[in-house]
Order: sequence, then structure tokens, then C-alpha cells
Amino acid sequence: MMTGAVPFPLDVPELDFEASGGTRIRRSILPSGVRILSESVPGARSATIGFWFAVGSRDEYHDGAAASGFGSTHFLEHLLFKGTPSRSALDIAIAFDSVGGDSNAMTAKEYTCYYAKVRDRDVPMAVRVLADMVSNSVLDSGEFETERGVILEELAQAADDPGDVAGEALFAAVFGDHPLGKPIGGTPETIAEASRDGVWRHYKQNYRPQDLVICIAGSVDHDALVAELTVALTAAGWPLDQRVAPVPRRSTAPATLSGTRDRVVISRPVEQVHVMLGMPALVASDPERVTLSVLNAVLGGGMSSRLFSEIREKRGLAYSVYSFASAHSDAGLEGIYAACSPRNADAVAELARAELESVATGGITDDELRRALGQISGRAALGLEDSDVRMSLLGRAEISLGEYQDLDENLRRLARVSAADVAAMAERLAAQPMSLVAVGAVDEDRFGSSRDRGVI
Amino acid sequence: MMTGAVPFPLDVPELDFEASGGTRIRRSILPSGVRILSESVPGARSATIGFWFAVGSRDEYHDGAAASGFGSTHFLEHLLFKGTPSRSALDIAIAFDSVGGDSNAMTAKEYTCYYAKVRDRDVPMAVRVLADMVSNSVLDSGEFETERGVILEELAQAADDPGDVAGEALFAAVFGDHPLGKPIGGTPETIAEASRDGVWRHYKQNYRPQDLVICIAGSVDHDALVAELTVALTAAGWPLDQRVAPVPRRSTAPATLSGTRDRVVISRPVEQVHVMLGMPALVASDPERVTLSVLNAVLGGGMSSRLFSEIREKRGLAYSVYSFASAHSDAGLEGIYAACSPRNADAVAELARAELESVATGGITDDELRRALGQISGRAALGLEDSDVRMSLLGRAEISLGEYQDLDENLRRLARVSAADVAAMAERLAAQPMSLVAVGAVDEDRFGSSRDRGVI
Repeated sequence: MMTGAVPFPLDVPELDFEASGGTRIRRSILPSGVRILSESVPGARSATIGFWFAVGSRDEYHDGAAASGFGSTHFLEHLLFKGTPSRSALDIAIAFDSVGGDSNAMTAKEYTCYYAKVRDRDVPMAVRVLADMVSNSVLDSGEFETERGVILEELAQAADDPGDVAGEALFAAVFGDHPLGKPIGGTPETIAEASRDGVWRHYKQNYRPQDLVICIAGSVDHDALVAELTVALTAAGWPLDQRVAPVPRRSTAPATLSGTRDRVVISRPVEQVHVMLGMPALVASDPERVTLSVLNAVLGGGMSSRLFSEIREKRGLAYSVYSFASAHSDAGLEGIYAACSPRNADAVAELARAELESVATGGITDDELRRALGQISGRAALGLEDSDVRMSLLGRAEISLGEYQDLDENLRRLARVSAADVAAMAERLAAQPMSLVAVGAVDEDRFGSSRDRGVI
Repeated sequence: MMTGAVPFPLDVPELDFEASGGTRIRRSILPSGVRILSESVPGARSATIGFWFAVGSRDEYHDGAAASGFGSTHFLEHLLFKGTPSRSALDIAIAFDSVGGDSNAMTAKEYTCYYAKVRDRDVPMAVRVLADMVSNSVLDSGEFETERGVILEELAQAADDPGDVAGEALFAAVFGDHPLGKPIGGTPETIAEASRDGVWRHYKQNYRPQDLVICIAGSVDHDALVAELTVALTAAGWPLDQRVAPVPRRSTAPATLSGTRDRVVISRPVEQVHVMLGMPALVASDPERVTLSVLNAVLGGGMSSRLFSEIREKRGLAYSVYSFASAHSDAGLEGIYAACSPRNADAVAELARAELESVATGGITDDELRRALGQISGRAALGLEDSDVRMSLLGRAEISLGEYQDLDENLRRLARVSAADVAAMAERLAAQPMSLVAVGAVDEDRFGSSRDRGVI
């Protein structure tokens, strides 16, 4: 069947439709603004459940900045595993461990998600525990101090990974002063300064019924899920009968960027240089994103992509090389990554830049277009075998896009992309200010003068 | 239904049985010794295909050493993607990319596997391409030189990852002079010296019909698969009608280890110290491995495990901490890993050692046993949703274990493990010589004298 794109308006309490592949998607909005989305997959024997809040590291720079502080979103994510009045940290850990469930959380720039993947019979347990965790956390002061140490170790781990460091530096270089340019977890300094009261205020301001989006995909009975959640959130003292509208979605108007940098070189005594190129690209809701996905398949999306062919296959200069897009509500970036020997860092950066330029000026072939469509549709179909992918698609549709696009709809949009569209997209990106990031045993001189040779 | 363990004798050409969950497993041995195993999963819309050879890095130290050289197994793995008389490297890449397939290879210490995951309709293509790649590679001299650069970058990437470095060092410390103690990919020096002719000899000696095991799980028709493979391998010039027995499996008699080291400290100017403890443990076919899996669930297998509780939850000393077993045909090791601040490295190592000791002397509770059984069975059930997990289980059964244990059989074995068995296993491990590895900004003094305090 063909559904097209299904809008997710915030003022319609019930939605129910069939998606491609025969799954059934339902959405209920409780009077209090809690949103519950489910995708029932025939034959599934397990499910992935996610509790989402549309608050991320970027929000630490807006109204909540004074109250919360840089790194609070991620700090809070850790603390929600540390206990409620009725469950200790160990109880929560045991609940998931003892059924072999996979439970974790992720803090991103625009959202935070607590999730678990469990067998069908364990879904009610997972829903109860996650609901208690997010609605009823005590943020114990002793646990707060202990967890500060854990988070500092997590930051140290990221700081020791030169690829991670390069990625963070690219976001900072391209997004500049925009809050999307800041690292997600704060810094050792801000985490050392974080206070339990500051994180508590952040929790109370951002984890309310109207902020919560619950998504579940796999083996699920929607009505039972809604009933279970109502019981669990009521038990946590949430005023579910109070009528509140869900918080509005973020603005999708592209932001004006300032404070961007054309070159960031971070010297490290390691063997490889992690080279990244990036530039402003599309926001998450931009209808042209499908064109950008085709461009990335051709440019750096597989073993037959242009970057892989030129840099690895023909010249043997890198083991890892690819391109990617990262899209957010009001800003996005296009990035190219390669790790190589210091002596080749400038050549690799120039080859990468030239490949983007080559698509911008010479376009792509019909063969490349056809292969890219096959690649994207094949990957999407394989991805839908995982309930965690389906759960994430539901969350993204509700929190970010405001509409659900099933596989068939995506394929229809993909089929309308032409080789000329892809060339135009590359031209548009190549015309943007480009940032170069390098982390490794190099200094700025390696990359020549930015005035003489563009950013490289 | 209950199947028990199904033996996989090498002199029986056809096997056909139903496994738990209603899948059908078939095995055919062609006259030439090629083994073809399939697991047909009802309702699957995709499949994972693996072409296995029971040759790994350890074999570079036996009879083939003079002919092949250290790192040849991994070098060959890279080269098989570089083309056959009828397919260029780009053709191979395009074949998988254009259907969105996930294709890759892995070289391990005792085997090498080339695999792909594709949608059902693309299975015949994947089988044809993989068969051509493994049976008919040209190992072009020019491609050889280019790939040398790629492999050196891959080694540099691993050398820049202190966790990887610690893992390699632990294998070397515990296995000592045994070939399992050597790194899989060789060293920059041996890769710089590798010759195309040496790798070619390695290829011809180890990639023969009697060495090949093909496993496929998911959407598969066994008879069609056998027919397809017969055509593909015949086209490659393989003498499939010549009668050859499959190569025998490796000996499972535990090896005597020598040259082991009780302490390895590798200084690196990074923020975290990667601490590992390890000792000789069980071979892959040891029936006690199920007991070891319970021990690892209790000791370091999840958020409620003892190591996680003591080191992360109570003290906030680490973000990552866990225990694991690595089992091979004639040797195995038990390992504990934690990454922490340099100032806590000795305390973390001591805490980890003490937790193992505590299980050895104090045993585990009935609650811990029950939770471990739930954890292992739940994880196993969730894992079987992925065709790549099923494909790997087939390969392991055929190449290493010599029998297939389905989920029900594993659960029966698990149910027979007692708390006393687990304590006895911990006691046995604690009595082994223990190796300590640390990679980071520490020196040997940090860990005190090994004479005074055991290895820590």
C-alpha cells in the first residue's frame, strides 16, 4: 500500500495508519501532552522502547543556560540511571541485565533518549522501569559526586580519540558561535563546576509531561502500552489529567552562522592525522535532503564511492575515508573524513576537496545515480529489520520532522532525484565557506596558505 | 522441539535438521571437500553469507611461516577485494554498494571470513561475487603495492587506539610465545617487507576446496545455493569433482604456554590508562565454557555486575569496565578491562583483582546466578534476530566446535550450572598466573612490586 507522507500534527490526539511492509503505526497524545507512538511489526518477538525529550546540549545556551550550565543535559542523562524513590541504581541495572536487555541512553545536540531493547515478554517491565526513571529520579547528592567522576572519565576517553576530537572541532569550526557548535558533554571544567541543584532545575524545567515522547517499535500492543504508561506516570506523580499542549517543535528556519573558522589544526603526537572538511549544508526538514543523501552515496558512501576510489583504492593513502551529512533543526553540515599519514595530510585534504568540486563542475553519471538509488534503498530496507532503527525513525518523525515518511514514500522521493540535482547540490556546497580540521602530528604550515589555495 | 547438540562429522556428506525456533539447518559436503551450511529462517527477507577459511594469523608461525610471513593472512584478506579475471576491484565494490549490501571481511587468529548481508533477492549475486573473489583472485602486483599503504594506515589507526594496544599486549602477555599471542595484522615492519609472491603462496596453500566453509543464514534455499556455488566455483577452475576430504579441525588439546609476562606497561601521553588483567582460561571446545559465561555475567557482564558496581557505581573511577573470555582451539584467556585516570590505575587494577578473588573465595549468590542465566538467555534470544549472528554460529560450529548447539540446548546446559561451579571456575582462574597490562601515562612503579603484592 502507499501512504505518502503522514503529517504528525500536535493538536490531533489519535493517529492510526498502515505503513509500507504491513506495519501499523499509532500515535496517542494524552491530555497532559505526553506523546505515545508505536509501530507494530508483524511477527516481531522483541521491541525497542525509547523515552525522548527534545532537549539537548544546544539548549544549555538558551533560556536555561543560567539555570543549568554546560554539560548538564548529559550529566542528567547519567543521573537518571541512579535511582528513584522505589528503585535504586542497582535495581534499575538488575531489571535490564536479568532479562538480557540492551539498555542505554544518548544525549545529542537537540534531544536526549533513554532506550531499551528487550524480548516481547519483557516489554511491560521495560516500560515501567523507564517511565519511573525519567519521571521520578531523586538525583541523590552522593550519587551526583560519584557520577561526576564517571563523566570526567567519559570525557577523557573522547579526548583520547583523535577522530572524536576532529569531529567536535569540525562542528565548532562550521557552526561557530551557534550552540550546535558546542560539544555535547561539556568540558572537564564545566563538569567539575556542575552543581546538583543546577542539574535538578534543568530536570524539572525540561522533563515534563508535555516534553515527553515515547516511541516503541516491534512487538507492541498500543492500547496496552498507553494503559501501562498511564499507570506508571501517574504513580510517579505526574499530573496526567491536567490539560497541557505538547511543547511546540523547534523552528526550522536556517540560522545565520557567525564565528566560523576556516582552519583548525590540533597537534597530537599520534601516528595518523584525522583530516576533516566541512561546510554548512541542509537543515533536517529540508526537502532537498534526499538529494544530499544521493550526493553522499556517490561522493563517500561506500567502497565504490569517489573518495574511496581516489584516496584509498588508487593511491592507498587512507584506510578510513567517507563523507556524511549531519542535519539539525536550524543548521546542518556536510563533512568529509579521512585518516592518513602526516606526510599525506595536505594531499588527502586537497583530493577530498577536488572530488566535491568535480561533482559540482562535472556532475555524476547515470550509472552513479542508479547505483546510489540502489544503495540507499537497499540499506534502508535492511535497516528496517532492526526495531531500534524503526524506533528512532518514529522519534525523529515526531520530534524533528513533524511527519512520517515510510520506506515507499522515501523511495518515491528518491526516484525523483536527477543527476543534475546532485550536481547542483555539490555546486551549492562547494560555494559555501569550507572549514578544514586536522588532528595529529601536523601543524598549520602543512596545509599552505588559506589565501593562496582556498582553505587548503 | 528439542534437538540437543548435533554433531558435524566431516565424513557425512548431508545433514538436515530443525533447530529451536523452527529454523532448518542443512549441511552438504561436496566431493572436493567444500562445505556448505545453511540455516533457513522462516519469514526472513534478507540473508548473511560468509565464506570461511580456517586459516588465521596464528598459522603464519607454523609450517607456512617461511612461505607466507607475518601479516600475510590479513594482507591476503585485503587483496581478495582487488579483483579476479572477470571482476575489477571497482566491479566488486559496485556489486555490493549498488544493492545497499553490507560487505566486508575479518581476519582473526584462527580463521578468515568474507561476508555480506543483502536482501533476499540479492543473495544469488552475493554468492557469485564472493565465490569468485575467494577462488579466483589475481593478486595484481600494482594493487599489492597500493594496498600495502592502506594496511599500514590500518595498523597506524590501531596503534593510535590505546584500548586496542592494551588488548594486543594482553594477548601477548598471557599467551607468550604461542602463535595466538601475536597481533593479527603483522607489524609495520613485516608489512613493509611482505612480497606479492609470499602472499600468493599463502593463498594457494590455504584457499583450496577442502579449506572452504560457506555459511548462509536467513532467506535461503539450500539446494539452489549448492547449485549456484557449484557453478561459480567450477567457473573459477576449482576441481569440484576431484574427491578430497575436508581439512581436519584443529587439535583441541590445551597447549602449554611459555614466555608469558606478568606485567606490561606501555607509556603513552594520553589522559586515560587502559588497565587489563588476564590469565589463561578455557579452550573453545571446553564443556565448562558455559560456566565461564555465567562467571563473566556476574563479574563484568552488565550494569549490575560486580566490577561495574564496585569500580564505576560506587567509586566513579571508570566509565568503561567489563570482563570477557576469548577462546581458541588450544588456548583461551579471561580478561578484565577498565579505563581510568592515571592516579587511580593501581587502585582499579587491585579492585578488579579483588573482585575475581572474592568470587573465588566467597562464591556468588543464588540471585546472581538466576540473573546471569536470564541475562545470557535473553541476549542469546535477541542476538538470533540478526542473520549475521546465526551465520557466525554456523561457522563456529563447523570450523571450531564440530557440533551445533541450538538455543534450547544452550539453555539446558546453562540450567545445569550451579553457584558452586561458578565459584570453582573463579578459583581456578585466580590460581593461574595473572598478567597486568597498562597503556597510558603511567610507569611500572605505579603498580608496586610484583613480588610484594602478587602481580599488582
